[in-house]
Amino acid sequence: MAAEIVNSKDGLEADVIDPAFALHRGGKMAVQATVPVRDAADLSLAYTPGVAKVCSAIADQPDLVDDYTWKSQVVAVVTDGSAVLGLGDIGPGASLPVMEGKAILFKQFGGVDAVPIALDAQSADDIVETVARLAPSFGGINLEDISAPRCFEIEARLKERLDIPVFHDDQHGTAIVTLAALRNAAKLSGRALGELRAVISGAGAAGVAIARILVEAGIGDVAVCDRKGVVSDDRDDLTDVKRELAGFTNKAGHTGSLESALSGADVFIGVSGGTVPEDAVARMAKDAFIFAMANPNPEIHPDVAVKYASVVATGRSDYPNQINNVLAFPGVFAGALQVRATDITEGMKLAAAEALAAVVADELSADRVIPSPFDERVAPAVTSAVAAAARAEGVARR
Amino acid sequence: MAAEIVNSKDGLEADVIDPAFALHRGGKMAVQATVPVRDAADLSLAYTPGVAKVCSAIADQPDLVDDYTWKSQVVAVVTDGSAVLGLGDIGPGASLPVMEGKAILFKQFGGVDAVPIALDAQSADDIVETVARLAPSFGGINLEDISAPRCFEIEARLKERLDIPVFHDDQHGTAIVTLAALRNAAKLSGRALGELRAVISGAGAAGVAIARILVEAGIGDVAVCDRKGVVSDDRDDLTDVKRELAGFTNKAGHTGSLESALSGADVFIGVSGGTVPEDAVARMAKDAFIFAMANPNPEIHPDVAVKYASVVATGRSDYPNQINNVLAFPGVFAGALQVRATDITEGMKLAAAEALAAVVADELSADRVIPSPFDERVAPAVTSAVAAAARAEGVARR
Repeated sequence: MAAEIVNSKDGLEADVIDPAFALHRGGKMAVQATVPVRDAADLSLAYTPGVAKVCSAIADQPDLVDDYTWKSQVVAVVTDGSAVLGLGDIGPGASLPVMEGKAILFKQFGGVDAVPIALDAQSADDIVETVARLAPSFGGINLEDISAPRCFEIEARLKERLDIPVFHDDQHGTAIVTLAALRNAAKLSGRALGELRAVISGAGAAGVAIARILVEAGIGDVAVCDRKGVVSDDRDDLTDVKRELAGFTNKAGHTGSLESALSGADVFIGVSGGTVPEDAVARMAKDAFIFAMANPNPEIHPDVAVKYASVVATGRSDYPNQINNVLAFPGVFAGALQVRATDITEGMKLAAAEALAAVVADELSADRVIPSPFDERVAPAVTSAVAAAARAEGVARR
Repeated sequence: MAAEIVNSKDGLEADVIDPAFALHRGGKMAVQATVPVRDAADLSLAYTPGVAKVCSAIADQPDLVDDYTWKSQVVAVVTDGSAVLGLGDIGPGASLPVMEGKAILFKQFGGVDAVPIALDAQSADDIVETVARLAPSFGGINLEDISAPRCFEIEARLKERLDIPVFHDDQHGTAIVTLAALRNAAKLSGRALGELRAVISGAGAAGVAIARILVEAGIGDVAVCDRKGVVSDDRDDLTDVKRELAGFTNKAGHTGSLESALSGADVFIGVSGGTVPEDAVARMAKDAFIFAMANPNPEIHPDVAVKYASVVATGRSDYPNQINNVLAFPGVFAGALQVRATDITEGMKLAAAEALAAVVADELSADRVIPSPFDERVAPAVTSAVAAAARAEGVARR
């Protein structure tokens, strides 16, 4: 932690010592006018009296707000700072650098304007109520770094209540990219998704969403493990979300430890941290897929994983196949906003994963089941697929 | 109103007919990254893993959020859409074009980033609670177009609760610019503020704030009139705010109509709409100052006002001496943010008015008691004065 070295009054010492501090000085984003306000004529159109006509028109026809303001192209990146990266509950102020980072990734990769909104609110009720009150100003809500299990309830209630897309990226962004990688790994090894049995380590936001999307995509079976082992019907310590999870996963009826579930499994997906012992990895099925996504320390080190797996992915940029949410969220929102979708449906997420997988079709290899975050084909492909799926699912408003 | 002409499906018809619609298409603002995110090295500083160090540092030393995020340079422009321009309670969506306009004026004139936040919230309790929850993301709160008398309570409660500047522009922006113009009018005619008796038509947000700042600045006497006449102690129909107003205005003890109070008055300040009959204007003191600021129809037409007044000001850009809030709010916030003020005090507002008046010192004339909104000396002068006043008043954090 660099906290000690920024004790100098103005932080300049830290800036010199660490380039991340130097880069963050003054923040990472700004607002800009996209119309001129240089003289009285400009002002009379962009502000009073001209603006009054636009306001009146929207008052009469509320949908015009999408045409004549930035609402339909701006996303709120909302957090309460309760589950920030691996740092935990550091609060809204300390979470802002992540939210700003997310905002500029939205812009850079998806052309979507985004505003960091870190809330001083704790309860699900307060967060839902606050976001609902903000919603008239935004075309979409990206929930970020909100701890489980509150994140599930908050997202579900906001999706129900609002007529703009709501998307908890820690869940669905990760799930989309994971499914894309898994699709390509299966394709590469000539196996159908239906043949595969996966074990997910971690039953938080990402683990639950990955389980859901894999089942929807038709994977053979998924067992999800939390710290106490496989999430299964026989347990009496499950939260509501895990109980629901137990209902649609673990067809094989595993009980007990992650290690035992892993025996003979085709796929390992780690979104938990912790370490899986090598002997358990060794008991997986032949040519397994290992996606060990904990950052910075994967649950199974890639150097170990390659000994047993035909495809290895991590969350790190210094190994092949980085499962990085930036492959999904910019295009998902860009597509949803493009057609003014009222929701981001499961079909739109599946379409995003398919489009993302398809980007590397011609270059598919064990070290390339997922494109680079800087592959410029990604966002347009995801955007188009999501927009088309929104139309197909009947949630597009244009 | 142009509402009828935008009934075409995509509004293009309206764009052709009216340049205000054409200009507003797609909104008036965008977000931009101020740091590069072109490759993995950039990403590792602006986002994970580099950002984690910055988050941890802020978690340890919360004030660092001002150095390492955009918080300390971004203002939320908050409304509930209840008193938008002369249009009344048109709701949050329809108010957005004004809030966006305000945001780009903040940027253009003060270099301050600003984000439109139009709330779906009605009660003072809900608005206060919502803004307080948003506050960790912003360096200041500009309240806008919130109807009286709720605006007074909302501002007062937020100022009490938050450690960032809160400023209701419809009150204080107008008050600052009005005082600046009045100072210069008095200077021009060689009269002291203490000699002047003013009548304010309108006891809403602007009227109340103007009365307050004029009394603080030492004007001789102020009588405020609402639709029922002079706000005076003998009335039994006063709201809390008007009762307070009656306590510190109207030393002369006027009762009855605006017209009667105007007899012999030195200053008329109109922030109400309506029309003042010419014979009442004719009974004002010799060489009166008439600031008839209703838009687009001044309470006293400038062509009538010049017959009786030595200085005439309006809210319109097509007559001399436009009382335009854009002369104040960008510099007020720029100054407050520059020193990371915890509040915008009365002293800071008075200092803003003095600095604004001083800008035209050398060019002072009856047609130039206030600078043009496009005078580039304005924002820097107001900024410096407000920052210095914040230090003098002990609310500056640096």
